Amino acid sequence: MVKRYLQVRTLDDVFALLGREFSCTPSVISVPLENAAGRVTAGPIFAKYSVPEIHLSAMDGIAVVSAETKEASEQHPIKLPRAARVNTGNVVPPEYDAVIMIEDVWEADGTYTIRKSASPWQHVRPAGEDLAESEMVMPSRHRIRPHEIGGLATYGITEVNVITVRIGLVPTGSELVAAGTRPMPGQVVESNTLMAKAMLEEVGATCTRYPFVEDTPEKIRDAIQKACCENDLVIVSAGSSAGTKDYTADVIAGLGEVLVHGIATKPGKPAIIGRVDKKPVIGLPGYPLSALTVIRELVLPVLKTYGIPVPRYRILKAQVTTALAKEIGSDEFVACTLGKVGSRWVISPQSKGAGVQMSAIRSNAYIRLPRESEGFNAGDLVDARLLVPVEEAESALLITGSHDPVIDYLADLLRPKGVSLISTHVGSMGGILALRKNECHAAPTHLLTDDGTYNSAYVKKYLPGTDVDLICVAQRQQGVVSRDGFLFADLPGRMFVNRQKGSGTRMLLDYELKKAGIDPASIPGYEREVTTHIAVALAVKSGEADAGLCVYSAAKALNLPFIPVASERYELAIRREHAADPRVMALIEAIRSPQFKTILEQLGGYETPETGIIRDGSH
Amino acid sequence: MVKRYLQVRTLDDVFALLGREFSCTPSVISVPLENAAGRVTAGPIFAKYSVPEIHLSAMDGIAVVSAETKEASEQHPIKLPRAARVNTGNVVPPEYDAVIMIEDVWEADGTYTIRKSASPWQHVRPAGEDLAESEMVMPSRHRIRPHEIGGLATYGITEVNVITVRIGLVPTGSELVAAGTRPMPGQVVESNTLMAKAMLEEVGATCTRYPFVEDTPEKIRDAIQKACCENDLVIVSAGSSAGTKDYTADVIAGLGEVLVHGIATKPGKPAIIGRVDKKPVIGLPGYPLSALTVIRELVLPVLKTYGIPVPRYRILKAQVTTALAKEIGSDEFVACTLGKVGSRWVISPQSKGAGVQMSAIRSNAYIRLPRESEGFNAGDLVDARLLVPVEEAESALLITGSHDPVIDYLADLLRPKGVSLISTHVGSMGGILALRKNECHAAPTHLLTDDGTYNSAYVKKYLPGTDVDLICVAQRQQGVVSRDGFLFADLPGRMFVNRQKGSGTRMLLDYELKKAGIDPASIPGYEREVTTHIAVALAVKSGEADAGLCVYSAAKALNLPFIPVASERYELAIRREHAADPRVMALIEAIRSPQFKTILEQLGGYETPETGIIRDGSH
Repeated sequence: MVKRYLQVRTLDDVFALLGREFSCTPSVISVPLENAAGRVTAGPIFAKYSVPEIHLSAMDGIAVVSAETKEASEQHPIKLPRAARVNTGNVVPPEYDAVIMIEDVWEADGTYTIRKSASPWQHVRPAGEDLAESEMVMPSRHRIRPHEIGGLATYGITEVNVITVRIGLVPTGSELVAAGTRPMPGQVVESNTLMAKAMLEEVGATCTRYPFVEDTPEKIRDAIQKACCENDLVIVSAGSSAGTKDYTADVIAGLGEVLVHGIATKPGKPAIIGRVDKKPVIGLPGYPLSALTVIRELVLPVLKTYGIPVPRYRILKAQVTTALAKEIGSDEFVACTLGKVGSRWVISPQSKGAGVQMSAIRSNAYIRLPRESEGFNAGDLVDARLLVPVEEAESALLITGSHDPVIDYLADLLRPKGVSLISTHVGSMGGILALRKNECHAAPTHLLTDDGTYNSAYVKKYLPGTDVDLICVAQRQQGVVSRDGFLFADLPGRMFVNRQKGSGTRMLLDYELKKAGIDPASIPGYEREVTTHIAVALAVKSGEADAGLCVYSAAKALNLPFIPVASERYELAIRREHAADPRVMALIEAIRSPQFKTILEQLGGYETPETGIIRDGSH
Repeated sequence: MVKRYLQVRTLDDVFALLGREFSCTPSVISVPLENAAGRVTAGPIFAKYSVPEIHLSAMDGIAVVSAETKEASEQHPIKLPRAARVNTGNVVPPEYDAVIMIEDVWEADGTYTIRKSASPWQHVRPAGEDLAESEMVMPSRHRIRPHEIGGLATYGITEVNVITVRIGLVPTGSELVAAGTRPMPGQVVESNTLMAKAMLEEVGATCTRYPFVEDTPEKIRDAIQKACCENDLVIVSAGSSAGTKDYTADVIAGLGEVLVHGIATKPGKPAIIGRVDKKPVIGLPGYPLSALTVIRELVLPVLKTYGIPVPRYRILKAQVTTALAKEIGSDEFVACTLGKVGSRWVISPQSKGAGVQMSAIRSNAYIRLPRESEGFNAGDLVDARLLVPVEEAESALLITGSHDPVIDYLADLLRPKGVSLISTHVGSMGGILALRKNECHAAPTHLLTDDGTYNSAYVKKYLPGTDVDLICVAQRQQGVVSRDGFLFADLPGRMFVNRQKGSGTRMLLDYELKKAGIDPASIPGYEREVTTHIAVALAVKSGEADAGLCVYSAAKALNLPFIPVASERYELAIRREHAADPRVMALIEAIRSPQFKTILEQLGGYETPETGIIRDGSH
């Protein structure tokens, strides 16, 4: 019953196999010139006629017979016996062989006087100067750049034969619902073939998404067969793993042959490569980041063998913030955030959950670890592959620490100023440690000391001798979230959901419990840890817990009662050495802006009198 | 009558003025998610619900109560009292709090045995793990990358508000005909607004091309007025210069205000910036390369001020092959070809004719000379701005010398092999000199010595001590082209059109005239020089000349009689140091290929017995 993968193959093996087993011939389609930018020519393109076909004036001026101008000079202006007024682009009448610029001509009573002779053919664009009839404008397999559309029109081209690969995308799974439908428990929005279509059509493939296919071998077989008839290559989304309903491999084997089941990549291992009707059929894993990896690292390179140019990712050397151990044998791909702190490029691996699509949205770079690699240590220089233009990476403002929704709103205020705020959620202490290693521009933190003060003590302890400023983003209310409006004093005996150790909220809870004389052991679920405010609220909403401690915005987002417990200083710790960094200056300006005050008021749960105040966090 | 430009303004002045005079607010449009890749968000996007909304299994396996697995070990396998089979993505039923992977489970008679304990919440994707309802998915002004379409679908987004700039493109000129119409003498195919549309829509503008407008002030005024009503910005193509029919500036002045007439750029000087209905109206010069420059250097940066991100060109340091003198005061832009010869990036300015659209197609880079620059000397290191991906520039094979159409066919054979052949037409001697300076990979040449031999003598003279191979591309027929089938002996007394001094064809002519005892002075038009075979044929076809000397392909292209005079060795001179360069090896392979032989036969005018033979050109 438990199915196992066939022998897992390396990516290099897979490419060699594809080259061996398939002809990889693209389809040819005709597109109107207006839609040809970015497409790749199927064959050479020839000029339909010469450009220009006849001599034209290259200037505004007069057409003359050069021999009749020979005697002209400053000392000896001459009146021309004949001449014709021509504008740029006008035909030079056959009796003339040169043009004199209008600036050098004096007109009176319909005759022209000149003070300079004209050499034969001056300022004349000779016939065929640009290109002659039947000459080649561009060769096969040329990616048409937008500015070339003009030249093609000039040379008489209105339709272009371009290459493409027709790709059939077959989404399988009884749990699928279409984008726009709120999924019921157990349902999933079909997003992988939408993503595949966007990624593959960007480079010039022609994708057809087929209707969702229920998880029965018969229906999957029919769908794959139809897609193979109508396309050059077929991608079957999901069902490629070894679960009880993973029929893709069996169906492909029934229709043709499974060549590969399991590739040595992480994520992306459960991919399948099969052959049906001489065409490649690729089974895509279901996890979004696995699917993304297989599209980027396997399918796009395969399109290259069809002649579709796929842009290479730009690579920068960057210092990695955390170690990553890996087993030899698999190529591993790590989504990351990249930014320049001072003069140093710093790169941080993101959450590794293959279902976390936000990490694909947050990441602006990735690291590829080849299969012979054993990983890297913190501080190593690695190749960062850019997923954004380099100027966007240069504008990244790295905010690492405790998360609050207002950070996202600051990102929204900063983006129009050309600053890309990227926040990494590692809790307040994680932020302080990142600041100590100078791996971020600012660390949001709300760390409470026993004496009831915020943040400074931690900065002093962990960054001794470093000049650090603390900028108050907001005084933030933390409180009890519940379905029944519990007070803090009601917590004993209720099923609780806690935040992870080291988080500011956990410290606040322990501080308030101590103050109130409540024993944590009296609170069931005290050991159950989640990592965000909203996860606390969700656990309460779903009934998994009765109460938790979180910020107001999280309770409000899920429409749950919220009883304030304490107000805390949510501050940004910033090394003073970065105070003049334009990104940091823009951040502080945004915090102090009236728009930001309005946002805080609208969100609720914040007190704003101290917002934007800078305190000396060092000493 | 002669209009002058207003004070010419620098590009920097123009940008400052635009920022001062216009609000530059983009339009907001809603696009379906499927079309959102590449677009820029108008506002922040929030998750419509949490993902996941309920705890899901992260693995194929069984859902268990973690507390009931505590005792399990290799030595002490336990049978679970309860468990539920779950596949990846299935809901974890509320009574369970962990998942054990199917690989670690033994099933028999419907019960499960395990050998390892499970920690609470292992392999469970907690509710809200990815994102929670109401959290921000992406901020304003974020360019949506194709792979993000999946995440957006998952978070419930089906429509996205994106920014754009609505641009009205108004082509003016009574001489205009639509692409696809062969222009009569004096007519021009309207290509500039087609090019503008492709270039501007690539970054996210929304362009409307209006019907062609005749050259009368009234019609131009009506068209501009309509376009201003319907768009955020209007571009009027042509009529921006100072010719007798250049009404654009006057019309704009009548409708609103001309802010700038003439910008200090080369090409591109006659551009206009005006204001009508508070909207910018830009007058584009008529020459294609001037229009291209104004779009790239002025309009695209203006779109940036509307919030549209415009990719920066990648810059490489390259050694320039020829000097360029320039006057201080203008920014100058030079279309170039760029390639790597040995380990050195080499860049060559292209033809400067503003009407030569082929130079925009041939160029893969450009040089920007700022207004304080006085130009550069040959050999200077300059900033090459790439117009192709860097990997395409790395694949460039630089062929510099005498041109023949077969070189274009070789380009066509090589492109599918990943080699971009770029040919620069400078004549045989120009090629030999480029080879001497090691600025190209191969120099096509057909230089005849008095003793009747080809090429070797010139290589020996100009590259003494350098190992050079000569590869025969073809034995090529040169002959007399005429409308009446003249023989070589018929030339005296006929109006002739000649090739430039230093060209192989000119040398062949002189050699054959001497052999036949014909005095050049007996041939009228001997002094009239054009620079290509096809220009010779065009001059004959148009009646400007009665005869010329050219290759068969040029006569054939224009359906003119051709009487062979001599067969010459058209060879590639290649430094032996590049013999192992994969691009050069691919070139030689292409010359020797059966496909190339077939092409030569089909084109006609070539003898092929020696094609691909390598001779030692050095000694």
